[in-house]
Amino acid sequence: MSVDIKKLISQMTLEEKASLCSGLDFWHTKPIERLGIPSIRMSDGPHGLRKEETMFSKTVPATCFPTAVTIAASWDKSLAEKMGKAIGEECQAENVQILLGPGVNIKRSPLCGRNFEYYSEDPLLAGELAAHFIKGVQSEGVGTSLKHFAANNQEHRRLTVNAIIDERTLREIYLSAFERAVKEAKPWTVMCSYNRVNGTYASENEFLLTKVLKEEWGFEGFVVSDWGAVNDRVMGLSAGLDLQMPYDGGYGDKKIIEAVKSGKIPEEVLDRAVERILRIVFKAIENKKENATYDKETHHKIAREIARECFVLLKNEGDILPLKKEGKIALIGAFAKNPQIQGGGSAHVNPTMVDDAVEEIRKMVEGKAEILYADGYHIEKDEVDERLIEEAKEVAKVADVVVIFAGLPERYESEGFDRPHMKMPESHNRLIEEISKVNENLVVVLSNGAPIEMPWLEKPKAILETYRGGQAWGGAVADVLFGVVSPSGKLPETFPKKLSDNPSYLFFPGEDDRVEYREGIFVGYRYYDKKEMEVLFPFGYGLSYTTFEYSDLKLDKKEMRDDEVLKVSVKVKNTGKVKGKEVVQLYVRDVESSYIRPEKELKGFEKVELEPGEEKEVVFYLDKRAFAFYNIDIKDWYVEDGDFEILIGKSSRDIVLRDKVFVKSTTKIKRTYHINSTIGDIMRDPIAWEKFKDILQQFASAFPAFSSEEAIMNFAEMMKYMPLRSLIHFGQGKITPEIVENLLRELNS
Amino acid sequence: MSVDIKKLISQMTLEEKASLCSGLDFWHTKPIERLGIPSIRMSDGPHGLRKEETMFSKTVPATCFPTAVTIAASWDKSLAEKMGKAIGEECQAENVQILLGPGVNIKRSPLCGRNFEYYSEDPLLAGELAAHFIKGVQSEGVGTSLKHFAANNQEHRRLTVNAIIDERTLREIYLSAFERAVKEAKPWTVMCSYNRVNGTYASENEFLLTKVLKEEWGFEGFVVSDWGAVNDRVMGLSAGLDLQMPYDGGYGDKKIIEAVKSGKIPEEVLDRAVERILRIVFKAIENKKENATYDKETHHKIAREIARECFVLLKNEGDILPLKKEGKIALIGAFAKNPQIQGGGSAHVNPTMVDDAVEEIRKMVEGKAEILYADGYHIEKDEVDERLIEEAKEVAKVADVVVIFAGLPERYESEGFDRPHMKMPESHNRLIEEISKVNENLVVVLSNGAPIEMPWLEKPKAILETYRGGQAWGGAVADVLFGVVSPSGKLPETFPKKLSDNPSYLFFPGEDDRVEYREGIFVGYRYYDKKEMEVLFPFGYGLSYTTFEYSDLKLDKKEMRDDEVLKVSVKVKNTGKVKGKEVVQLYVRDVESSYIRPEKELKGFEKVELEPGEEKEVVFYLDKRAFAFYNIDIKDWYVEDGDFEILIGKSSRDIVLRDKVFVKSTTKIKRTYHINSTIGDIMRDPIAWEKFKDILQQFASAFPAFSSEEAIMNFAEMMKYMPLRSLIHFGQGKITPEIVENLLRELNS
Repeated sequence: MSVDIKKLISQMTLEEKASLCSGLDFWHTKPIERLGIPSIRMSDGPHGLRKEETMFSKTVPATCFPTAVTIAASWDKSLAEKMGKAIGEECQAENVQILLGPGVNIKRSPLCGRNFEYYSEDPLLAGELAAHFIKGVQSEGVGTSLKHFAANNQEHRRLTVNAIIDERTLREIYLSAFERAVKEAKPWTVMCSYNRVNGTYASENEFLLTKVLKEEWGFEGFVVSDWGAVNDRVMGLSAGLDLQMPYDGGYGDKKIIEAVKSGKIPEEVLDRAVERILRIVFKAIENKKENATYDKETHHKIAREIARECFVLLKNEGDILPLKKEGKIALIGAFAKNPQIQGGGSAHVNPTMVDDAVEEIRKMVEGKAEILYADGYHIEKDEVDERLIEEAKEVAKVADVVVIFAGLPERYESEGFDRPHMKMPESHNRLIEEISKVNENLVVVLSNGAPIEMPWLEKPKAILETYRGGQAWGGAVADVLFGVVSPSGKLPETFPKKLSDNPSYLFFPGEDDRVEYREGIFVGYRYYDKKEMEVLFPFGYGLSYTTFEYSDLKLDKKEMRDDEVLKVSVKVKNTGKVKGKEVVQLYVRDVESSYIRPEKELKGFEKVELEPGEEKEVVFYLDKRAFAFYNIDIKDWYVEDGDFEILIGKSSRDIVLRDKVFVKSTTKIKRTYHINSTIGDIMRDPIAWEKFKDILQQFASAFPAFSSEEAIMNFAEMMKYMPLRSLIHFGQGKITPEIVENLLRELNS
Repeated sequence: MSVDIKKLISQMTLEEKASLCSGLDFWHTKPIERLGIPSIRMSDGPHGLRKEETMFSKTVPATCFPTAVTIAASWDKSLAEKMGKAIGEECQAENVQILLGPGVNIKRSPLCGRNFEYYSEDPLLAGELAAHFIKGVQSEGVGTSLKHFAANNQEHRRLTVNAIIDERTLREIYLSAFERAVKEAKPWTVMCSYNRVNGTYASENEFLLTKVLKEEWGFEGFVVSDWGAVNDRVMGLSAGLDLQMPYDGGYGDKKIIEAVKSGKIPEEVLDRAVERILRIVFKAIENKKENATYDKETHHKIAREIARECFVLLKNEGDILPLKKEGKIALIGAFAKNPQIQGGGSAHVNPTMVDDAVEEIRKMVEGKAEILYADGYHIEKDEVDERLIEEAKEVAKVADVVVIFAGLPERYESEGFDRPHMKMPESHNRLIEEISKVNENLVVVLSNGAPIEMPWLEKPKAILETYRGGQAWGGAVADVLFGVVSPSGKLPETFPKKLSDNPSYLFFPGEDDRVEYREGIFVGYRYYDKKEMEVLFPFGYGLSYTTFEYSDLKLDKKEMRDDEVLKVSVKVKNTGKVKGKEVVQLYVRDVESSYIRPEKELKGFEKVELEPGEEKEVVFYLDKRAFAFYNIDIKDWYVEDGDFEILIGKSSRDIVLRDKVFVKSTTKIKRTYHINSTIGDIMRDPIAWEKFKDILQQFASAFPAFSSEEAIMNFAEMMKYMPLRSLIHFGQGKITPEIVENLLRELNS
């Protein structure tokens, strides 16, 4: 960096420093001309740039790529990076220095209004894809803002709600994706969320912003508030919130000045924030590309190439897909002509163009097949229109095959409110039921950003989940339906059978301003697996037009210390007739644990492309974190000695290969014995047991039945839950408090 | 009372007072001859007297009545009272002044080792039956000890484990049965449990022992420690633990003396405990009946009459039951000859005699039918013995009907350890499968103290759940199988399909010494109903040999205040051909609530006996508690204004009649507005909204789009989750912090 930041700060007045800690307006940081400090621009957009000139104004056209959950369904890191790079180019062209995304909040409930712009129920998948997206954007010299930090998993009362989460759950589930993205991809900024976490607003949460993010994870950029997330500006600054957005009339700056002047906070606290902001401001300016442009057609093409890698084939009876380019093909459902490609709120992009699925399919089959069309339902209302259904039935009757486009209208999913239920509009459900009565060659193409119920599941022969496919959705659908590419998406989340199956159901979205995450670490498949529940479709599930076989699972060690790295390799072969991509999923299972753990957890995934007959080897490297859990007793990640199974799966519920490794902890936890340590605890510790045996013998002698060595062992087993103090209570005077005190001194020495 | 307790205490030395606060030995309180203070005797036994002369010695014979879960299945309050009275008589005859029971801990998990001696998953059912049992015992001038107070819902690490439970859950579920029994039946003593509750040992938990039990509920007896439950004797005394048991070598007394001498606790604290102990000691002595006896045969007969009211008919295809006294009847299963009538540990009674089911059935059918018998399995091991199975099959083949006796051996269920799973021994499951292949007229009679899995559910035509039936079980089984009485028991707990369905499953029995009750109030049917889960058999379920019809549900009010009482009446008629008893169950459902509530909760039940064709009216009175939940914000029971449904059910999942009442709260909760109150909160309060409208208009004027009155209402709706501080952040200077401060002052005045 060409600018001496420290020196610059030393030249600034207190007022100038404070002024830098909040926005100039809705989107810019403040410039200080006197010192040559420029202003930079931030703009919304995790799946495309949303640049508005003023608040609530229409935004400039930009490529609307598939939303986060959609890209997550690709399970393709390089694809996430490619998309990031393209969006970075658009930022440069539009003179935007920081893109406000990606969002890595965990999909705790299917109802969260912003689920479409979040990745997954799994923190590894979310974290990896976000990291690659960030790398892509930042490779273009544009910053990102990793959001919403943290535990912002619902829209209901999001500005005031207090998310109550135990630390282990925070660490393993809700912070983990952030941690991975921060460490791997170094986002320029992190955006704190609106909500409170364990009683303290995220915007003034020192544990989150300073202890964890900056100190533990080594985050070097600045923390920006979500727009309007500041509660107490001075507490926020102390806690590690650097930049307040948007401009608030200057009230926040004024409070900072007062606080420094009155000695409430030392000026160094302010300097620290100013330094972080300035480093990014100058970095952004240095990376700015003058006169940058991008080609809208090229980006649209990229959007299509990405989208078609994301769709998940949920069902394909009798290989009805790919469709043949012949006969009469009926397309039914207003979504086909009015694609529902994203969700509402700050993520909403004004697309440069939008593919119409009917048109794209017509182009695809030109001269070979006839395309029929019917609306089937109204997009803007949920009620059934019998006339439209009848019309659609007439069309379906004469077709050789019917494709219904259905799912959730965009209005169902938005920032600002959660869905009240997990159902599709009644008009869609009825349409599928009715059409299935007149044509059995039925394919359903779904557009939705989060799980839905499918009461009509048995009816269609094929179901293609396209999530929120972005502006080239229509073309991508044509590509997949007609086999230009084989579908290769896998669900980045479980589809439960019904809403009440979801682990958060009992306590979501909470009472008043309090939401308790009582399911703890049991989110998504971690819950459904442990509870042995049937689901509609499991995490990681997705079909293909070809088939894959797995073999040769190899672990480079049978035993290892937790500071070593395990190399895992496995071969996967395309055994079908067309080219395809497969997502190789690696899960780790702690075979036996004295702590509560999920059945298994995703610890690696790789997507590979294979020609028919081709075989590739996929390699994974597993370090301590692949085996560890967050141990609240020692406040650190910890691996309990024992066997771990390495599971290779086509999905979380289709494990095809497995092997075992013994992992030994390098962390020694010192056990301290006290008056309430149990006899069982002592029995498990050979050294303590040696020291204890005499006393137990003395104790047992109070009971004539227990005299032999063997009887004493049995006695100890029987008494295993007894704390040491019980020796006194039941010892009938034979065991004095002093004897126990002496023992404890000896055990702990 | 003829003794002046206060005066007596004034004559006691410090040492004498302290000495009274712990036992003389394992079972007696200390006498003080100088002052004429006698000693009293306590003995185990919630379902029969367990009086041992010395520790671990064989106990004196006593009638072993059905255990608590069994009597709970009768849903018959008068029966619980009758049983209590009979046990009270035996205590008088054996010179026991206090019976250590009943136990009303909630059956949180099917695995708890002591489930057989606890009543139910529902606190109303547990509390009502315990109250009547207490009344029965105490009507004989013998005291009871309501135990184990509190939250002792597992045996795993029970002496040291910390049960972490939110207060609402404690109040509504885990304390509620104690509260009902204490208030209704005034037990002479309450026994504190071994475990910790929210970090503090129950034996030194001031919240439990003093604030809740003594102050709120008005408990006037003394609190005794579970045997060995004392941790810190002085803290215990201060917290409200009066009597330490058993004799501990005098260490506890010594500490009390030191604490008083050093001024660590005032002597009044000790006096308080001594007074409570002495009142009960003298009460016990005054009620002692010299030369009391009881007739063993009569009590055995009572045990039989009680047991046959408790059995639950789970299935009865083609009315295979009652059995006809004809042909060849095969009885298979070693339980028939070795009844498994109770569980292990301190509740284990040495029965005066035990009915053999084979003998009782033989007597029943004497001269009319032929009885065959085969062991089928070994009681002392779980493994299948193919020879015994083959033998049994040979017997079954030639029989007209087969009755298999199966379930859990007594060794599966005991104080001191929890079951590791919910399965029956493999030998029992296999036996049922195999026999079902050779004879389709199959009846299964189960003995077990808690839910079990039934993988063979579809095989037998009838299933009779007899729980832990006590010493007259064999005769009672004969009575029910052959229709001497119609079965009238109803399950006092849900039988889930598999263990992992249970709400506590994910966090039971905890990690190390920490168990979190994360399912909260969702215990038993409260969970299965809310989660819309299929169960094996629902709470309250049970068939009969006759049929009942319900009609004329009447509520005496359509609207009421929460300080009024609702009278509910309903008619029930025996529409079948034999005499029978029906349990009328009343559940209350809060139709809509801003708080998290169960789908419905049991709020009343009555068992009625009806001759064929007979009809009776059952009346319930519902007060505030029938509608209230424990509101942690105001720390009190609270009814939210609104409609409540009154549901009359044959079981929790078979609601036959319903009506509605509107209940209005008499508790006014004052709302205090603050900077983070949301616009939505203000909109719901007409007075606040009037005061707020002007400011919102000012705010909206910052955005040209929102000018009309209607637009402002829409704007407010859109902004409903926004806290007041956002007006400043987004007001672009139009709304100053002072404007908001003034508003708050006005709203709160």
